[in-house]
Amino acid sequence: MASWARGVRAVLLDVSGVLYDSGGPEGGAAIPGSVEAVNRIRQSGLKLRFCTNESQATRSQFVHKLQRFDFSISEEEVTAPGPAAKKMMQERGLRPHLLVHDDLLPEFDSIDKSEPNCVVIGDAAENFSYQNVNKAFNVLIGLEKPVLISLGKGRYYKETDGLKIDVGAYMKALEYACDITAEVVGKPSQNFFMSAVNEMGVKPDEAVMIGDDVVNDIGGAQRCGIRAVLVRTGKYRPSDENHPQVKADGYVDNLAQAVDILLASGVAGH
Amino acid sequence: MASWARGVRAVLLDVSGVLYDSGGPEGGAAIPGSVEAVNRIRQSGLKLRFCTNESQATRSQFVHKLQRFDFSISEEEVTAPGPAAKKMMQERGLRPHLLVHDDLLPEFDSIDKSEPNCVVIGDAAENFSYQNVNKAFNVLIGLEKPVLISLGKGRYYKETDGLKIDVGAYMKALEYACDITAEVVGKPSQNFFMSAVNEMGVKPDEAVMIGDDVVNDIGGAQRCGIRAVLVRTGKYRPSDENHPQVKADGYVDNLAQAVDILLASGVAGH
Repeated sequence: MASWARGVRAVLLDVSGVLYDSGGPEGGAAIPGSVEAVNRIRQSGLKLRFCTNESQATRSQFVHKLQRFDFSISEEEVTAPGPAAKKMMQERGLRPHLLVHDDLLPEFDSIDKSEPNCVVIGDAAENFSYQNVNKAFNVLIGLEKPVLISLGKGRYYKETDGLKIDVGAYMKALEYACDITAEVVGKPSQNFFMSAVNEMGVKPDEAVMIGDDVVNDIGGAQRCGIRAVLVRTGKYRPSDENHPQVKADGYVDNLAQAVDILLASGVAGH
Repeated sequence: MASWARGVRAVLLDVSGVLYDSGGPEGGAAIPGSVEAVNRIRQSGLKLRFCTNESQATRSQFVHKLQRFDFSISEEEVTAPGPAAKKMMQERGLRPHLLVHDDLLPEFDSIDKSEPNCVVIGDAAENFSYQNVNKAFNVLIGLEKPVLISLGKGRYYKETDGLKIDVGAYMKALEYACDITAEVVGKPSQNFFMSAVNEMGVKPDEAVMIGDDVVNDIGGAQRCGIRAVLVRTGKYRPSDENHPQVKADGYVDNLAQAVDILLASGVAGH
């Protein structure tokens, strides 16, 4: 029995690269065995939450897409950076200039965007045109105290047709151009993981994070005292198992195998 | 008399922001007094070289543009990153994937670009689409030893219609996405300044660099033992005079004033 599974009461699941690979005309494809794996977690009595840096859609659209792939998932089970950023802006009186995917825009419908005093970037994909990046740069450099909020800081992710450069790269571009440091909402920020764990009503050391991003999923969770297991799906590369800074608590071929191990260890929450 | 002018035998001039501001339908506008200032340097007997990170055009096109603004300048007087990168690729057997401005492409006509084993980025401006940046990322991440060559690493520059984010930001984006460090050809690299000084046949401490970029022009030149003077034109901002790392040897309102000071100090090379 793998020691990472001992005493686990709650499971945090990354979505892209663990449940499905995004991209393509169908909007992606479920990773074999993952639909059943989610169902088996539910049946086991383990607490479950989805912890994603997805910022190409509202949480509602995102959940509907996963439901079309037959995943058992509901909106209130998802911790996502869009809603977290919205909350932060409301608390701090921030009015964003948005450089995000068109499909994420409705998440911020109710937020005042006049005379922006911050820039929010998400995984804008095709919206990362030179013109749009330059516009965001000019908003920032024109502020007395530039505030850049980044929805995650991933380096890249995998779509069905290949690897895609992620929001973290554009965050670094704007940080450098403006000589500032962004505030990250989403993994690997500690607040983000802790809000997901708190939602489940467990302690960090009772939860395990399962993800395909060695730095943001594994390293991020571990810094909160959450165990973390790397799947060999999604953007996984063999060199991730020799990462100079991060060592996962376990390595599995895919989510299905992680659930096999969890259930074999008799960790069911009942 | 300003001490920075003492014993100067050679002048290195940055171009964009010192001679002219680029941009707009006319391709930019000369900065008042700069055409005459260049002529006065020539008449003084001081050695002169143009040291630019311009990478939106071939050296030849760039020089023709400046000549249309009445600047006295010839191709062989210009140290530019395109030709320097070409030389480096020839010496090291590098075959580039190019993410550069369309107008720079002819500079690399004679270079083998099949099966790329490196990526070269310049100030690609509108060519910095998400698709093109993602393509460059995929070339790099697919290489066993990714080599990224950046034509300069400027944060931003000023065009006639405002500030523009520069190649350095995209260099940082690709560095982060691929977890690599780029090789910079152009200012502030030491090789680049030294080749310009050597072309003039003077020692570093006999030359003065005049530029509008506190890090790349001023800091870069000073690290080679070249004096450096910041102009208050181009992308200059008052905060540049309180830069935490870099203190220029002198500050002038524009190139014309720098030349006034140089000539008043009787430094003429004859």
